[in-house]
Amino acid sequence: MSRRGERPSAEALATLPVAVDAMGGDKSPGEIVEGARRVAAENGIPVVLVGPPDQVGDTCGLPLVACTEVIAMDEDPAGGVRRKKDSSLVRVAELVRDGQASAMVSAGNTGATMAAALLRMGRLPGVIRPCIATPLPRLGRTPAVLVDAGANAECTPAMLVQFAQMGAAYVAARFGTTAPTVGLLSIGEEPTKGTPLVKETHALLAAEGAAGSGARFEFVGNLEGRDLLPSPADVIVTDGFTGNVALKALEGTLRFIFDVVTGVFMLDDATKAAADVLLPHLLPLAAEFEPENTGGAMLLGIDGVCVISHGSSNATAMVNAVRVAYECATRGLVDHVAAAVRPSPDA
Amino acid sequence: MSRRGERPSAEALATLPVAVDAMGGDKSPGEIVEGARRVAAENGIPVVLVGPPDQVGDTCGLPLVACTEVIAMDEDPAGGVRRKKDSSLVRVAELVRDGQASAMVSAGNTGATMAAALLRMGRLPGVIRPCIATPLPRLGRTPAVLVDAGANAECTPAMLVQFAQMGAAYVAARFGTTAPTVGLLSIGEEPTKGTPLVKETHALLAAEGAAGSGARFEFVGNLEGRDLLPSPADVIVTDGFTGNVALKALEGTLRFIFDVVTGVFMLDDATKAAADVLLPHLLPLAAEFEPENTGGAMLLGIDGVCVISHGSSNATAMVNAVRVAYECATRGLVDHVAAAVRPSPDA
Repeated sequence: MSRRGERPSAEALATLPVAVDAMGGDKSPGEIVEGARRVAAENGIPVVLVGPPDQVGDTCGLPLVACTEVIAMDEDPAGGVRRKKDSSLVRVAELVRDGQASAMVSAGNTGATMAAALLRMGRLPGVIRPCIATPLPRLGRTPAVLVDAGANAECTPAMLVQFAQMGAAYVAARFGTTAPTVGLLSIGEEPTKGTPLVKETHALLAAEGAAGSGARFEFVGNLEGRDLLPSPADVIVTDGFTGNVALKALEGTLRFIFDVVTGVFMLDDATKAAADVLLPHLLPLAAEFEPENTGGAMLLGIDGVCVISHGSSNATAMVNAVRVAYECATRGLVDHVAAAVRPSPDA
Repeated sequence: MSRRGERPSAEALATLPVAVDAMGGDKSPGEIVEGARRVAAENGIPVVLVGPPDQVGDTCGLPLVACTEVIAMDEDPAGGVRRKKDSSLVRVAELVRDGQASAMVSAGNTGATMAAALLRMGRLPGVIRPCIATPLPRLGRTPAVLVDAGANAECTPAMLVQFAQMGAAYVAARFGTTAPTVGLLSIGEEPTKGTPLVKETHALLAAEGAAGSGARFEFVGNLEGRDLLPSPADVIVTDGFTGNVALKALEGTLRFIFDVVTGVFMLDDATKAAADVLLPHLLPLAAEFEPENTGGAMLLGIDGVCVISHGSSNATAMVNAVRVAYECATRGLVDHVAAAVRPSPDA
């Protein structure tokens, strides 16, 4: 059921709308539709909403592709996609597959989004498994990207090497990084540290990404958990279990500190006055860490652009997710990823 | 070469000194000796230093067990312990083994500390592999404990179950927690989420730690990375690879935020004045996260008390590490851990 025929050119993609799952996320459809309306009106990006008309309600003048079903946030992903063939999530993926949309965006059930994208658009040739690329802020610089942030709990060294290839292609297409660096997440700098998976991957990446080798990335060796913020490498490679735990540990720590500091600010009149002095300096920094500003995670390795937005996405998050989806589609992200992946015999 | 004869009673241990590796850590011997002096003078805890007399220098009146060698911070752990039989690290472990010290403390090479403790004191009966237990602060409550924080990159479900048993015994002995709760680090709440290791461990822990089962702990299910700070469970169980990455991601995020906020405080006179108002409230909270105040990590599963202090330990860190070592020794931590571990056929 994957793509029929040629992938559209970048020029053709620029004229196609981004397909937005109007029913995805905790704040759907209200905030989702509002975000889609804003990005269409303010950024001139063509958008099409997908959802059951009676549930979506007012589309603010945006076109709507009608469907009859919705996959719930907590529904079994594979089962949901298999059973609900006329769900908004399945339909946005089909619009990309069928050349009627340039990209898909959903803030819904992450597992179901991956399943719908994979089953409807299909894997790129030679890709063993798609992975999730999540941006990690680096104040004042382009973000680093963590791959895999949670798509594959179990990985092989060949998969991790492809994550490096795809992650490097992604930062090149999205941020214009000309010579991406790749680090491998481990528990020590030495190549002998870590699990067998990490040690074997280290050897493969060192062979492929040696400085001056002409490869599409430079391998800078192992990184540790403390290197994630800010990351010295443009791409951090790890399996989806470790990546998800590390990402959530980082997010949880930021949230915890935010709550603690906010509590201190609110203690009394003196601390409130001090907060008024500091907040104009702190808020712009804090904004770089807000998921709503990062544009969401990208599913790499499938034959189409698929942005997975945070389940708590508001209108601003959708504006940024649609922008990232549109930019990546029109910059030929899928072609770049396809060219970067060395086909594996495991694929 | 492990312990000869009976383990000393808690009463006997209270009269024995804590053996301190005077040459361990980036700030040895100066800060290490000063910390040992302070904890002896101010807390009345008997301490013996171990190191080459010419390198240790002034012992501030503390007894010194002389040795001739030092294992460097970056030396191969197993090789160092094997070759340097008269090193300070090996000798502190032997003092515990031989009933001449109640516990050992080192801020030196972590791998070599584990190797020395394991090879000289030996594993407790039935323990497959020792693990590192690291405290995670929970403001205003006793800390949670992460096991394994990095001793074993590769683990089996049977090992993780023992980490739960040992971690629960540790929080009971150290913090007086009467009904410890245990959570399993994964990438979703559902028992079906995660790696095969996590899924099998989930089933074993659910069978052993069911509420009301009379087990020494209650299993509360899977936790995610975002639950580490503050942890809803007293003990968080994971393999040493994931545990080390998560712990360092957490530490790195705290350090990053600290640097960012400090930078804002120093911007101009107005922000400095605001900082002066807030710091009296923020510093006590920040202190709970300083490794020097947490007393260091504990190696569980060996026949003796071994505290692994941070490599950057100063005198205050040593005071707290020696206090934790002494308290755990005199409260019979090793007996509690030995009683909690269900011997595995893999041991």
